[in-house]
This record gives sequence, structure tokens and C-alpha cells, in this order.
Amino acid sequence: MEPIVIVGGDAAGMSAASKFKRERPDREVIVFEKGEFVSYAACGMPYYVKGTVEEFDDLLQVPPEEFTEERDIDLRLHHEVVGIDPDAHEVTVSAPGGEFTQPYDQLLIATGARAIEPPFEGMDLDGVYTLHSLDSAKEVHDAMETQSPESVAIVGGGYVGIEMAEAFDAHDVDVHLFEMLPHVLAPFGETVAEKTEAHLREEGVELHLDTAVDGFSGDDGHVTGVIVGDETYSADLVLVGVGVTPNAELAAEAGIELGESGAIATDEHGRTSAEGVFAAGDCAEARNVVTGEPDYVPLALTANRAGRAIGQTMAGDPTPVGDIAGTAAVKAFELEAARTGIIDEESAREAGFDPVSVTIDASTRAHYCPGAEQITITMLGDKESGRVLGAAMVGREGVAKRVDTVAAALHTETTVDELAYFDLSYAPPFSPPWDPVLTTAKVLGGKLD
Amino acid sequence: MEPIVIVGGDAAGMSAASKFKRERPDREVIVFEKGEFVSYAACGMPYYVKGTVEEFDDLLQVPPEEFTEERDIDLRLHHEVVGIDPDAHEVTVSAPGGEFTQPYDQLLIATGARAIEPPFEGMDLDGVYTLHSLDSAKEVHDAMETQSPESVAIVGGGYVGIEMAEAFDAHDVDVHLFEMLPHVLAPFGETVAEKTEAHLREEGVELHLDTAVDGFSGDDGHVTGVIVGDETYSADLVLVGVGVTPNAELAAEAGIELGESGAIATDEHGRTSAEGVFAAGDCAEARNVVTGEPDYVPLALTANRAGRAIGQTMAGDPTPVGDIAGTAAVKAFELEAARTGIIDEESAREAGFDPVSVTIDASTRAHYCPGAEQITITMLGDKESGRVLGAAMVGREGVAKRVDTVAAALHTETTVDELAYFDLSYAPPFSPPWDPVLTTAKVLGGKLD
Repeated sequence: MEPIVIVGGDAAGMSAASKFKRERPDREVIVFEKGEFVSYAACGMPYYVKGTVEEFDDLLQVPPEEFTEERDIDLRLHHEVVGIDPDAHEVTVSAPGGEFTQPYDQLLIATGARAIEPPFEGMDLDGVYTLHSLDSAKEVHDAMETQSPESVAIVGGGYVGIEMAEAFDAHDVDVHLFEMLPHVLAPFGETVAEKTEAHLREEGVELHLDTAVDGFSGDDGHVTGVIVGDETYSADLVLVGVGVTPNAELAAEAGIELGESGAIATDEHGRTSAEGVFAAGDCAEARNVVTGEPDYVPLALTANRAGRAIGQTMAGDPTPVGDIAGTAAVKAFELEAARTGIIDEESAREAGFDPVSVTIDASTRAHYCPGAEQITITMLGDKESGRVLGAAMVGREGVAKRVDTVAAALHTETTVDELAYFDLSYAPPFSPPWDPVLTTAKVLGGKLD
Repeated sequence: MEPIVIVGGDAAGMSAASKFKRERPDREVIVFEKGEFVSYAACGMPYYVKGTVEEFDDLLQVPPEEFTEERDIDLRLHHEVVGIDPDAHEVTVSAPGGEFTQPYDQLLIATGARAIEPPFEGMDLDGVYTLHSLDSAKEVHDAMETQSPESVAIVGGGYVGIEMAEAFDAHDVDVHLFEMLPHVLAPFGETVAEKTEAHLREEGVELHLDTAVDGFSGDDGHVTGVIVGDETYSADLVLVGVGVTPNAELAAEAGIELGESGAIATDEHGRTSAEGVFAAGDCAEARNVVTGEPDYVPLALTANRAGRAIGQTMAGDPTPVGDIAGTAAVKAFELEAARTGIIDEESAREAGFDPVSVTIDASTRAHYCPGAEQITITMLGDKESGRVLGAAMVGREGVAKRVDTVAAALHTETTVDELAYFDLSYAPPFSPPWDPVLTTAKVLGGKLD
């Protein structure tokens, strides 16, 4: 029988390869990875630049030898798959030794996503970076160490922008953050955004909201500033983090169907429109648990678990890849922000719901406990079904894992009134008797009646 | 119409009174409280003794005037209800001015629980305390300040015992903890218990497990030691915390049905066997969400939400009090422990399940993030239905609120395989991509197949 072939050696690909091999040690699995790293912690890159992750190698989750030797996976680095022929069940591979074709029994496309490179004037100047790979993280890290920039500009106020603001600030440089939209962290909603912005300013980050960058000025081939209309803001180093786009071209060229988002369309088992071909991770869509519709939210857990499920499915035990709730968390200096599901009324209405929302402030611990912090929670419910639709929250502690309770409610189609009566944990150092999530559900329940 | 009458002015009683008044401001509500405090934070008492809660008044959640003046509740302190006549719809009240009867339209019994006073020799010696009320917390607090004991003994290794060990230790005294059973924190299971015990010893607490106390020695009416068989351990102050017993006598004497636990039997709306009479809080049973059977787990949230629900029901909008999962958390010095549902195989089998369990260690943050701690999770699943039955966890961070995700799974009869694919939050400072709860469910799922 022909081998299982996997295109891409990061979270989705290596999870699938490992799971398949555990189930079917007798079968051959080949992973083609065009770069030199596998299974790396892209999410750790800001912390490497910041300096809290000291060794570059710490970003490698599993060393390649563990895959090849211990897990018996045929891992080929510097091998780029340049074509897929779904009818012939084979891929064309460009490798250091030349091009060749490789037949497959089943194929997984796990090509990931790449940082969007906007057509800014000066994008190619030295000192302008995107965090598109471990190599680029190393370059930024080394530039901070060796060039000692005085002023750093970040373009984009999403996760990467926010985390990099904290990373750069640790090096004691002026940090400017430019965001085209009126607020940072758009997926987290206005309330979280405003509190995050206030905190970023407190920490000394210079925010430029509602501000479209036109390009970058340079001197002798090296960036010197960020151009906004008639103004130029001085910057010795620029980090562009305006989002990612799925690496779906390989699939598209093979005639495999893409979704509306531009990522590869998949069914509940991660199957694409081509027989025997799966897709997972940042290059693929997944089903949103609230709307039941395809969605594109490229995040690490989604890639890991879809890869694992597909490995199991390819081994003969059909396993759904799981729905996504768009659950996400981000740390911004001393602040934690998190979100899950649908958190703005407009999106909820577009999805066919009749949304009602509340925003409340509550204490993260019993009121008399030192260290208690305020947490602000926005929660959305559907007036018709009573269901919880989503929540966003922000505060100095106890945020990231509190959102999980709401995510669980989304996966189980729990109503707001039911959520308000979940038996959540209480002890004075960790929560008031009514956890803030319960309090929010209680108040929202009153508005849904 | 006769008023609503509530017996007991703590969490359940005041929640019911407040909710009823919000719904029906036109109706009269009388609360009889035999003591002098209402709505107080019993759970805060160890932190008051420790010194982290500086002011005694901080333990009062809501001052009495707020109930009487702002919420228009007829609150009568130092009024003890000594009899209930369910047929005549009236209670007999013993008050400073004498005894009187008070007719009611509907009645809520919210008499709470009291600390068990074991028949130890020397229980009546000065310096031997139970934490049965705010007054006793004040006495212990003042004794620590004024008598400067050198050695303190705690009898009982439950929540109170563990929290008081931390509280006493902060005063730089020798702390001995005596537990009759082989382990502390019985409801949390052996794994959590063993890790907690190791940590208590690290912190300098002298543990005496599997050790039945016979009584206390004294000199001149003041305690001097703890007697165990032929040995006497020196102790200048003794705290007995061996559990609580429901204050159900008043109900029993009125012919109201008690459950097997000895607490007042209630239906899903908190109704007792007597028409128009409700019971809530530490004196009442509630339904266990996993077994569907009556259970007695006297905790703060259960009291608060049952009180609120009954207030709403009494106002004409029948509202279930909510099932309990026995969710609980406790802090032991630097350690957090939490539990929910059924966590031992024997109890699960008794409840008719076919349990399988796993225990795993995982990291609370991405492996490369400084500050990452180990968390140990035990999870139980039912082989027949695949359902999650419960979990216990312990670690130095991120425990108390992680257990809530499992509690949510219990309330929604989620299977272990479903839980493993919940979209929980991930960011390197807060979790690895697969949250420890997901990892545990993944491993447990493999054993359930």
C-alpha cells in the first residue's frame, strides 16, 4: 500500500503523523517540510524576542530526531511539495536533489498560513520584519540585541502586535503601535479593546489608532521611519503584524475547493473536496460551533486537534476534527484578555440570532481578599433560544481560564439561565461565591426574559 | 396577605429576601436571625485569623442597614425561631422582649449548619475553639494576638483545617494537624491529598495522619495539649474543625421530612414536605447533577443560588434551585486544589456507573514560559455512557478555575470524548495548546474505548 503523505511539518502535520503511527505502526508516513524546523512554537516567538524564553531551541517543541527515530516517521526537511494530482494520488516534490513524484494512499495538506505582507512602500527595507517563521523571530531578536534601536514601530494591533509591544518594551525602547481600525484586538470587542488600550498607554506604548500607515522611510537601505500622510514617525525597527493568510494555493491549483474565507473547505472529518485528501490547521476552515457554518480562525489548538483527529481517521477510526468557538486569549503586559463565540450583536444578527448583551464588572476573588482584581465581562445571549452566544473578558488575573467555562457552554448549547446555575468553584482566594461568569449570566438572563 | 418569613439571615436567607423584594416590592418580608450578624463571610474567617483580612467588619458582606433601609426587608436580629406549625402556617419566635407567634404565607428555613463538637475530653477547656461563628473567629484571632501561643493544634484535615494551618503558620507558631483518616481533604481524593500533605510538611506543618485524638489536657482550665493514646502533644491553642452538621432540628420537630444525610429533604424548587415551606443552604439537601440523587454538600454558592431561586419562586416565578456538582476549591499555602463531581471509583460504582480513571501531570503554561507549573489531574469517566463523572486537580497555579470546565461538562452530561474537543483558550502565558483538562480527557478517552 502507498504511504500516508503529509505536506507541512508543524502542529497539524506532526500531530497527524504521530497519531497515525501510534495507531498503525506497520504503515509508512512521509512528512514533507519545506523549511528546516518542525513542530515549533510560533506562539512563543514574542516571548523569545522579549527575552523570557532564553534559548532559541526552547521554541522547538519536539526535536526532529524524536519524530524520525522514536516515532518512526519519514520526515524530510527542505522538501517542498509543489504540486498535487488528486486523480493520480501523487504529489510532486522539489528537494535539494531535484524534483520527484511521490504516490500517496491518503494525503494531508497542512501548509499553514503566512504573515500578510501589505504593499507598503519600503516593505523591503532592512529592519522591517514580519513574524512569519522562527528565522524571522531570530532576526528580530538579534536586531534588538545588536543594533539597540531607540524606537520601534509595530503595524497592526492584533495578537502579534500586542504581544510584540510587550516584548519590545522590555528592551526599554520607545514603542509605537499603529492600528488602522478605531481599536486594537478587533475580535475581542470594544470593551476589552478600550481597557487594553488604556493599559498599553499606562505601560508607555504610544498608540496610533484609526491610523493607516502609508509606508516606511529609509536611509541607506535601512528603515528610519513610519510614514502616515504628511508625517513621519521615527523608527529604527518595524514589525508588521497585520494578520495571516492561508497557504491554500497548492490546494487551489490542484482543483481542491476553497471556502469563502480563502482557506481550504473541509467537512467534519477534515476531508477536502478531493478523495483521500485532508486539510488541517492554519490552511483550512473549520465549523463554528455557534453558527454551524464554516469559519476560519487559525489558532494552535485547532491545528493540533484536527491533525490528531485526521491521523486517527486516516488510520481507520473516523474521528471528527471538532468544532471551533474562536476561543482565544492574549496577555498585554499585566492584563489578560480572552474571548469565545460571537461577541458582537451585528455578527450575531448576521448569523440569524436575536442577540442581547450585557457588560458587568466583578471581583476575581472574595471582596475582602487582598489581590482581588476587577474583571470586566461582556456576554451575548440569543433572545429566541436563550442560548449563550459568546463572551469577552478582560482583567489582571483569572481571565484566560474563566473564558473556558463559557466555551464549554457554547459546545453544549447551554442557555444563559442554565449557565447561571452551573456549580462553579468558590474559595475566597480564587473567586467570590458567585463567579463573575455566573454573575454575568444572571444579569444577562434577566434581560432575556 | 401574610408575610414571607425567613429563618436565618446568612447567604441563603438574605439572598431569598433580597430577590423576593426585588420582584415583589409590595409584599412584606421578615427575616428572623438569632445572632447579631447577617450575610457574613464564613469562608473568610481563616483569612481574618491569618491577618490578610485586616478588619473584622470586612467579613460582613452587606451591612444590616442595606437590607433594612435600601432593600426594605424587615430584619430582626436576636430573634430565634423556636417552633414551626406548618398546619397553622405560623412560627414561634423567641425574642429579647419575649416569645410570640408570626403567621406566614410562605416560609424559608435557612438555618445553616454548625461545627460538629466531638465528645472529646477537655472540649470545654479555654483555648479550645471551633469556627462556628464570626464571634469564634474573633476569639481565635484575638487569642493569637494577645496570648502569643507557641504551639497550635488543629483537629481535622478538611477545608477548615487546611486553611487554618496556613492562617496559624503566618503567626510563626508550631502547627500540628491531626487527621483521623489516612489522608487530609478526603473529598479531593488520594492524589490531591498526598500532594497537599507533602506541601504542608514543606511549609513546616507537623502532620499526624491516621491519628484519632482522644481529648485535650489542661492546666487551670486552659488547654495545654492534645492527647493521643499514651502521648500528649503540647498545644496552647486548639482548633477543632471536623466538619459541620445541618441545623435541621427545627424542621424535624415540625414533622418536615429529612433526607438520609440528616439535612432537610427538598425538591428541585427547594420545597420541603410541608406545604408552603422551603429550605435552602447548609441545612438542606440538593440534587447531585451526576447521580441525580439527593446529596448534602454545604457550600456557599449552593446556599446563595438556592436562596435566590427560592426568592423568585416565592414571588410567583418557579425557578429550580440548580443541581450541585460538589465543586470545591481550597488554597493550602502555595498550592491550589479543586474537585467536582464523583472522583473515586467506589462512589461511582455505588451510583451505578462503570468508572475508569486516569491521573496525568501537565504544564499550566507553554513549556518554554517562565513560571509554568505542574498540575496533576485525576478524571473519572463512565465506560458505559462515555460521560465525564468528575475530576480532582492540584498544582501551584491555574487550578481553581480550570475545574469549572469539568463542572460545566457535568451539568451538560458531556462525554469524555466531547470534552477532549472543547475549544478552550490558549496563549503561552496561560496554557499549553492542549489545556491540561483536554489532555486528561484525551488520555481518559483512550481508556474508555
